[in-house]
Amino acid sequence: MNTTADGINNKTFMKALVYNGPNSIVWEEKPKPVIKEGTDAIVQITTTTICGTDLHILKGDLPAITKGRILGHEGVGIIDEVGANVLNFHKGDKVLISIISSCGRCGFCRKAMPSHCLNGGWQLGNRIDGTQAEYVRIPYADNGLYLLPGEVEEEAVVMLSCILPTGLECGAMNGQVKPGDIVAIVGAGPVGMAALLTTQLYSPSMIVMIDIDDNRLKIASSLGASHVVNSSDGQASLKVMEFTQNAGVNVAIEAVGVSAAFDICQSIIAPGGRIANVGVHAKAVELHLEKLWALNMTLTTRLVDGGSTPMLLKMIQSGRLDAKKLVSHRYKLSEVIKAYDTFANAQKLHALKVILWNEKAGE
Amino acid sequence: MNTTADGINNKTFMKALVYNGPNSIVWEEKPKPVIKEGTDAIVQITTTTICGTDLHILKGDLPAITKGRILGHEGVGIIDEVGANVLNFHKGDKVLISIISSCGRCGFCRKAMPSHCLNGGWQLGNRIDGTQAEYVRIPYADNGLYLLPGEVEEEAVVMLSCILPTGLECGAMNGQVKPGDIVAIVGAGPVGMAALLTTQLYSPSMIVMIDIDDNRLKIASSLGASHVVNSSDGQASLKVMEFTQNAGVNVAIEAVGVSAAFDICQSIIAPGGRIANVGVHAKAVELHLEKLWALNMTLTTRLVDGGSTPMLLKMIQSGRLDAKKLVSHRYKLSEVIKAYDTFANAQKLHALKVILWNEKAGE
Amino acid sequence: MNTTADGINNKTFMKALVYNGPNSIVWEEKPKPVIKEGTDAIVQITTTTICGTDLHILKGDLPAITKGRILGHEGVGIIDEVGANVLNFHKGDKVLISIISSCGRCGFCRKAMPSHCLNGGWQLGNRIDGTQAEYVRIPYADNGLYLLPGEVEEEAVVMLSCILPTGLECGAMNGQVKPGDIVAIVGAGPVGMAALLTTQLYSPSMIVMIDIDDNRLKIASSLGASHVVNSSDGQASLKVMEFTQNAGVNVAIEAVGVSAAFDICQSIIAPGGRIANVGVHAKAVELHLEKLWALNMTLTTRLVDGGSTPMLLKMIQSGRLDAKKLVSHRYKLSEVIKAYDTFANAQKLHALKVILWNEKAGE
Amino acid sequence: MNTTADGINNKTFMKALVYNGPNSIVWEEKPKPVIKEGTDAIVQITTTTICGTDLHILKGDLPAITKGRILGHEGVGIIDEVGANVLNFHKGDKVLISIISSCGRCGFCRKAMPSHCLNGGWQLGNRIDGTQAEYVRIPYADNGLYLLPGEVEEEAVVMLSCILPTGLECGAMNGQVKPGDIVAIVGAGPVGMAALLTTQLYSPSMIVMIDIDDNRLKIASSLGASHVVNSSDGQASLKVMEFTQNAGVNVAIEAVGVSAAFDICQSIIAPGGRIANVGVHAKAVELHLEKLWALNMTLTTRLVDGGSTPMLLKMIQSGRLDAKKLVSHRYKLSEVIKAYDTFANAQKLHALKVILWNEKAGE
Repeated sequence: MNTTADGINNKTFMKALVYNGPNSIVWEEKPKPVIKEGTDAIVQITTTTICGTDLHILKGDLPAITKGRILGHEGVGIIDEVGANVLNFHKGDKVLISIISSCGRCGFCRKAMPSHCLNGGWQLGNRIDGTQAEYVRIPYADNGLYLLPGEVEEEAVVMLSCILPTGLECGAMNGQVKPGDIVAIVGAGPVGMAALLTTQLYSPSMIVMIDIDDNRLKIASSLGASHVVNSSDGQASLKVMEFTQNAGVNVAIEAVGVSAAFDICQSIIAPGGRIANVGVHAKAVELHLEKLWALNMTLTTRLVDGGSTPMLLKMIQSGRLDAKKLVSHRYKLSEVIKAYDTFANAQKLHALKVILWNEKAGE
Repeated sequence: MNTTADGINNKTFMKALVYNGPNSIVWEEKPKPVIKEGTDAIVQITTTTICGTDLHILKGDLPAITKGRILGHEGVGIIDEVGANVLNFHKGDKVLISIISSCGRCGFCRKAMPSHCLNGGWQLGNRIDGTQAEYVRIPYADNGLYLLPGEVEEEAVVMLSCILPTGLECGAMNGQVKPGDIVAIVGAGPVGMAALLTTQLYSPSMIVMIDIDDNRLKIASSLGASHVVNSSDGQASLKVMEFTQNAGVNVAIEAVGVSAAFDICQSIIAPGGRIANVGVHAKAVELHLEKLWALNMTLTTRLVDGGSTPMLLKMIQSGRLDAKKLVSHRYKLSEVIKAYDTFANAQKLHALKVILWNEKAGE
Repeated sequence: MNTTADGINNKTFMKALVYNGPNSIVWEEKPKPVIKEGTDAIVQITTTTICGTDLHILKGDLPAITKGRILGHEGVGIIDEVGANVLNFHKGDKVLISIISSCGRCGFCRKAMPSHCLNGGWQLGNRIDGTQAEYVRIPYADNGLYLLPGEVEEEAVVMLSCILPTGLECGAMNGQVKPGDIVAIVGAGPVGMAALLTTQLYSPSMIVMIDIDDNRLKIASSLGASHVVNSSDGQASLKVMEFTQNAGVNVAIEAVGVSAAFDICQSIIAPGGRIANVGVHAKAVELHLEKLWALNMTLTTRLVDGGSTPMLLKMIQSGRLDAKKLVSHRYKLSEVIKAYDTFANAQKLHALKVILWNEKAGE
Repeated sequence: MNTTADGINNKTFMKALVYNGPNSIVWEEKPKPVIKEGTDAIVQITTTTICGTDLHILKGDLPAITKGRILGHEGVGIIDEVGANVLNFHKGDKVLISIISSCGRCGFCRKAMPSHCLNGGWQLGNRIDGTQAEYVRIPYADNGLYLLPGEVEEEAVVMLSCILPTGLECGAMNGQVKPGDIVAIVGAGPVGMAALLTTQLYSPSMIVMIDIDDNRLKIASSLGASHVVNSSDGQASLKVMEFTQNAGVNVAIEAVGVSAAFDICQSIIAPGGRIANVGVHAKAVELHLEKLWALNMTLTTRLVDGGSTPMLLKMIQSGRLDAKKLVSHRYKLSEVIKAYDTFANAQKLHALKVILWNEKAGE
């Protein structure tokens, strides 16, 4: 009865995490979403999680996101309803939700760059309501969902909505990591860890993880970093140059989004090297072209496209990628405020990705 | 008699343009260079020219270059003598000199990146004496010279020592210009013009040339720019966005080396676009990652490698590239100080590349 | 009244070119097509043309194509009707029809390889009725049509349905033509000429055109070939090796679809070279791996994807590509049988592309 | 005293494996090689091995190789003497010998394609005497040798002369293996196993190994193949299609050099897939263009360049690549005839790579 938006009578409600302006979020009742376009699907969330970008939003760093927006762009769920033009999915399907909405018809989509889809892109929890809710409306469902086999572990798969494709596409792929390369990753938070996991798909000979938190560095070692550097003392670049006999690194991945992290990348990159920016930056940084102009280096930025999601799903299913290693905490969806609190105090609480599972799903 | 350096008696002399510290150059007598390594050649310069980078040196922007250095890294000449291990050249050969010295044996040379050769790179007029002289010593001559047929026009070919490969490799190739692309080039000086000529080898649909000098923009139009913008009023970015219906450009080539030019590039680049830095920068610039982080853009820097020189030579010889269009003035080599003066006042004197021909060559 | 297929009463009729089995085509009355899916559009053809592949079909070389099929996969027309889910087009729009139908939702479409779309690919005049008719049904219209400005020349633009993207994508792009390359094109029929025109977008230094027909070779010279070779005497490879001082060619484009043409490509390719097969082959060929195994060469095949169509349209509109040069003959659509006859006797009648214009369009 | 070739008195002798025409090799006394060019080095072999290509030579498949030639192009040794122009090596250095001689000065070397070096390429055991001897002359030593640290395992490192770079460059790299790809390797001999080991550097999701020998398939499983297929029954293609739900494979690597193996590759390749030929073929094969013309596939051939050797050395040293797994048998160098016999009966004797160690080295 909730498939049309035209009557007050048939409106049903759900609970959702709503952004209330800088530093304010509430878990409150909202109308359950309805199909607006024939290409939409409504998905009941079973598992979702929180992204570092959600914290940026909460701080007010992304001012285009307005009060009242339901946050979240990651999730696994069950299809509740599909629009008339959804070809590939049906009610009851278990699906993975991609952060990126892709119309499949614009110039960017047709060039395999849906992050800048003229009708989509990063919509969920940004320009439209997101996944930290009991239900979510997914535009262009055929291109924004992936069918999951029944037996998959949701905690692992939900890492494919955003964090692992981001680490892979914006980090490892943009950094063009090749076998034998020396890679440095600045920032051992969730997205840095995602870059660490996915970089290994290309067999670098050395991965140096740089962070200010020894606990995270310890985890990084267990996830495959060959070297770790605590940058608290401002000597990280010197140490990396030592590790590399002053040759520098082939690939530097910025996974923080602040000037200091970007500076380390600039100071350790080898001739012919690639700096892959993954971090969400709120301010301009200094680019040292007076040194870099002659270095034959490449710097990339990227909003994740999600084109790698089907491949990553295969890697999880074949046991070659252990995505669950990124999960540190678990909460009920109704405890989402507490989960944000944990995630915002990640260093103190040793948090990486925080899983939210919908205790009411399946009811 | 000048092949050993060990005796005062057999030393012969030549005239050369010598850097005397910031803002000071002199045309004076210097010992004629001699073979130091078996892989060297001595070349009598017949034609040389001045690079924008020479002006940077003269201003003191490249402090590694010390007093007493003979400047110049471009030239055509006749081989006067070869070392015992030079395989491909002989006395009397007419040759083009490459800016880059390449040992052919280090890791960078073997990856086709001789700009960072561990034993070479940009040596001439930088770490060793250069080509604005009657004679020059060329290290690793087999890899630093190109044999010229007798009938070639030296004025055209000398553009292949540095300026055209720089425009092509650092600009068009690093910018990955493709047929149909929209390209903006900021800076209509010699290297910007070289980028303009070589960008057309990839058939962009639109080339916007941006400069503060109307005369240079007029020349740019005649060399193939489809649109020109005088940026004196600070509105260049707005105009480019208008030309492109707010889509921005696929490729922005920075061919000046100053912050303002780099800023234009940042503000007009389309999602998925490439900024190719060609300019020699003396200071850091601001990089607006707060806007660019999500733009899926690529920024490159590069010291020219010269790998494209043989191809460009073929294009000149087959009449498909008119390199002489870059030449605006001609002087005798002994008038090199006057030539520097002309080149330093390029805007006022409508100068592009200034040719120096050695009136004593062949004597 | 023709939008449903369910009643005999509302069926209207049109004229169309129907394949009647090997060597038999008829111009006859057929039901006007109707919308079957919400993503369909019905287009009234204003201009169409005949492809070399249509001749292959006619000969029976593509046995999957069955009796009763309306042929043709090229066309320009006016939209007569759109399905409920077509977002980008409206009745009355002037459109270019792409040979390729792309669902925009399958793995191949999302990797920018719609030629192998799981729900589309090359459908028109192959698996569904085609464009050599007064009306045609276009599946996935949003991805299979391109909006044309009113003033465009239909004869030029209809070359973008298939022939020019084929020459470019399967020939020049797959052959990775780069500035300065030496390119040989075997076959100076329409698709070879399309390869010739589009190869020039990448500025090769030499293009050798090879055919058995002197008239076509003369046209090739006028379209930009720097060398032509008549291969009737079986000496084509020898001549190409002479032209190249025995170095061979960087790129060899097979644009015929027979063993003899493929053999020439194999025998002239340089180390590191690329053979780009464009021709439609009815039989296996011999591949001389006993010589090629050590040659570091690349061989590609491809069904056109059409991804280059928007770029080519820009090039035509900006006057940088003169597609009309491929047109040799013009007929009324109702004279299509005569047009096939002309096209099938191309050598004798000096035919390249044969335009068919619908004299009843606009009525 | 053996550095000049001009006197009978100072000639010293060594033992070497000499090709005596088809099916005939002898272990006999030969003059110890001497420096001919300043860029040469003489290396005392400590470890060498036999390549599948050596068996091809022995069969007479490579007729350019003439009677009297010392065979072998793989080896580790100690430098005995260097020419005057060798810059990077000294007497006593432990070195790895590359199959490829590279002058570092020709167009191919400067494009990082030394396999086709105009002055080198595959010389050893082919156009000049090779490494299955007590001493060997290495031309262009600076580019043909790699310095080894003292502690390295020679059995592992000798796999970098040819077999592992061949598997990597001609197989995995030419096949453009990407994370998640499905790869089939036809042929589980040494070079197929090398392709298997190096393909894993790119993290495919599935590797199907195909051979007629169950023992080799068992080893392949232990080296990382996820699926194995015995092709004796002619059903290999069917099985691969089953494994892939009829999608076919992204990459097919031909590692045998016979028509039947190439046929399997052709029949299982997916749209957009790559066939990488590694095998040395003595005869032409049939290429099924009647099916492949529309498949958007790429086929490559390659003589190894060896550019990957430094990277592979790093991978061995960091413990990420276990090259010794390829070794099945060990003989003294003086037992080389017996070793050939073992290698020629590989299937029966369960042989992969056969190590030859020079019992007289160090004396």
